[in-house]
Amino acid sequence: MAGPLTSSLPPQLSRDFQEVSQHVRPQMAALDVFMRDQVERFEPEIRSLAAYCLDTTGKRLRPTLVFICGWRGAGVVADDLVRVAGVVEMVHLATLVHDDIMDRADLRRNRQTAAREFGPEAAVLLGDVLFSQALHIASQFPTTEVCRLVSESTRKVCSGEIMQTLRRRDINISLADYRRIIDLKTAELFRVSCFLGARLGGYAADFVAAADRFGHHLGIAYQIYDDLADFVGEEQLIGKTLGTDLATGKLTLPLMMLLERVSASERASIVAALQGGQALGLAASRQRMKEMDIAAAVRAAIEDELTLAVAALSLHADLAPVPLMLQLADMLRHQVAVLETASIAG
Amino acid sequence: MAGPLTSSLPPQLSRDFQEVSQHVRPQMAALDVFMRDQVERFEPEIRSLAAYCLDTTGKRLRPTLVFICGWRGAGVVADDLVRVAGVVEMVHLATLVHDDIMDRADLRRNRQTAAREFGPEAAVLLGDVLFSQALHIASQFPTTEVCRLVSESTRKVCSGEIMQTLRRRDINISLADYRRIIDLKTAELFRVSCFLGARLGGYAADFVAAADRFGHHLGIAYQIYDDLADFVGEEQLIGKTLGTDLATGKLTLPLMMLLERVSASERASIVAALQGGQALGLAASRQRMKEMDIAAAVRAAIEDELTLAVAALSLHADLAPVPLMLQLADMLRHQVAVLETASIAG
Repeated sequence: MAGPLTSSLPPQLSRDFQEVSQHVRPQMAALDVFMRDQVERFEPEIRSLAAYCLDTTGKRLRPTLVFICGWRGAGVVADDLVRVAGVVEMVHLATLVHDDIMDRADLRRNRQTAAREFGPEAAVLLGDVLFSQALHIASQFPTTEVCRLVSESTRKVCSGEIMQTLRRRDINISLADYRRIIDLKTAELFRVSCFLGARLGGYAADFVAAADRFGHHLGIAYQIYDDLADFVGEEQLIGKTLGTDLATGKLTLPLMMLLERVSASERASIVAALQGGQALGLAASRQRMKEMDIAAAVRAAIEDELTLAVAALSLHADLAPVPLMLQLADMLRHQVAVLETASIAG
Repeated sequence: MAGPLTSSLPPQLSRDFQEVSQHVRPQMAALDVFMRDQVERFEPEIRSLAAYCLDTTGKRLRPTLVFICGWRGAGVVADDLVRVAGVVEMVHLATLVHDDIMDRADLRRNRQTAAREFGPEAAVLLGDVLFSQALHIASQFPTTEVCRLVSESTRKVCSGEIMQTLRRRDINISLADYRRIIDLKTAELFRVSCFLGARLGGYAADFVAAADRFGHHLGIAYQIYDDLADFVGEEQLIGKTLGTDLATGKLTLPLMMLLERVSASERASIVAALQGGQALGLAASRQRMKEMDIAAAVRAAIEDELTLAVAALSLHADLAPVPLMLQLADMLRHQVAVLETASIAG
């Protein structure tokens, strides 16, 4: 049975993700209840708008990280893990509401975005309301730690998004710049989800630090995978519109690697297309990606990060969360392999 | 000497406000230092953007409320009052960044808005960064109280703005709806500024509750004044572009009162103009406001709120903050009188 957790995922990813997520099914059910209850905490006049955004059809990767890193055995549903999972998910949903305004996206998960449904003006404010409420839940823990860490992570996520926005079509972006942007916009919230999961799960400081490093590297790997999928993925396999990075002039690792490898004249024509604000042809770009074997090089970069993520756990193999964390890293590795197979076959 | 506190205010308001603000000059100087230091807390790549938004030329009404309600005598600059003043001001500045995107405003305080300077996409995220950092400062207090109250207030402020946005050009808005919206979008942050000022100033619970009520009523009065000024004010006296409520179809108390008093046929033509998305002529509307004596009726509504604000302090006349709080209420009363004189003379 495909629950709300995975219902929007395409078959292949759904199967992979379900293998990991079946472990945290009771926690996710508790999160569903928590999120539904949260709707009642908003001002009555905007509850229906909040409910629209707090839909339960996403992958819930960040809550999964919280539950897995704080894992204390099958069936143990800790209230504070559920609450902190709600916090990181709500921050993530708020960023999606604002992202969809900026990308002028009409659809997400097969329905209208909040910007399309309520207008961009209301959507700006609705994102703000979700951010505020996430921080409000964070402030209900006994100490200020959750609020301190989550507010800082939120600032970093949005700062990474600003940098990316300001550097669209900028071909002088370095590999270090790219790493910095994906560290902030994606890895930061993965990292803090793992840190808070392990910490609220009651684990010792050395494992909490290990979970923190695991989350960071997994987040970097996930974002590079996501950027690769935008070029070489099959839409029905990935479950979202692809080629948007090219269309919006976002310089990601695959495109940066392509620019490095092509001839000066081809580079000049790609740069001209990017800077002129023209969308590069997705089909043509994919063809060149294949010819230049970019996917393999990008896959190596992902593998490097997954190796570091796994290495962070090496001294903690006896702890309950570790097998699940390794399974999550394997899941991503498998998804990358599926992507490459599709790319070669396509 | 007009310091950064009041430099953007027109002469009349500046003189009134300086009378009150001279008391909190050392606190405001400390707030300047604090805000400049905050710029360094943002990611290096976006510091110049943050600095642009954290300008020091605003009235700083909310910090003034914090300092006055937590007043412990001339020259006493309490570090935690400065920090909480920074929190409420940064939340306010974040809402202005997002408001200016929605109103497509190009200018604020005689310079380009963030939306105009950096583009609306970056401005959405920049507002988010300011909100996050405000909550991050809030989380650095010993307990979760500041974070809890400020995150809730932020949610309410943005919820009020959503309601206002969704009900533009809606002539079925009731007086209760209008009160609810201005309570959330304006009075809420006034209230929490007064509450936190008194609380961090170390005052007893009964005065903290009194300061809370004072802030609420002062905030309602201030917003009604602001709405009245939009119709009958003189631009050089108020210091901002007027008539924007009419242009954007915002139903405020003066317009609601006008609609109540005119003939059915005149009402129908105003409603048609509003709902058709046409800007009502400011000059014509002002003329009718005068003929119908709307200003006096609105002034009475403001006076009612100021009376309640002052009454909240009646049992605490012996406390140090109270004379300054009363002076602030008087200042607003005086501004309303100036507005009416200008309106009659104009």
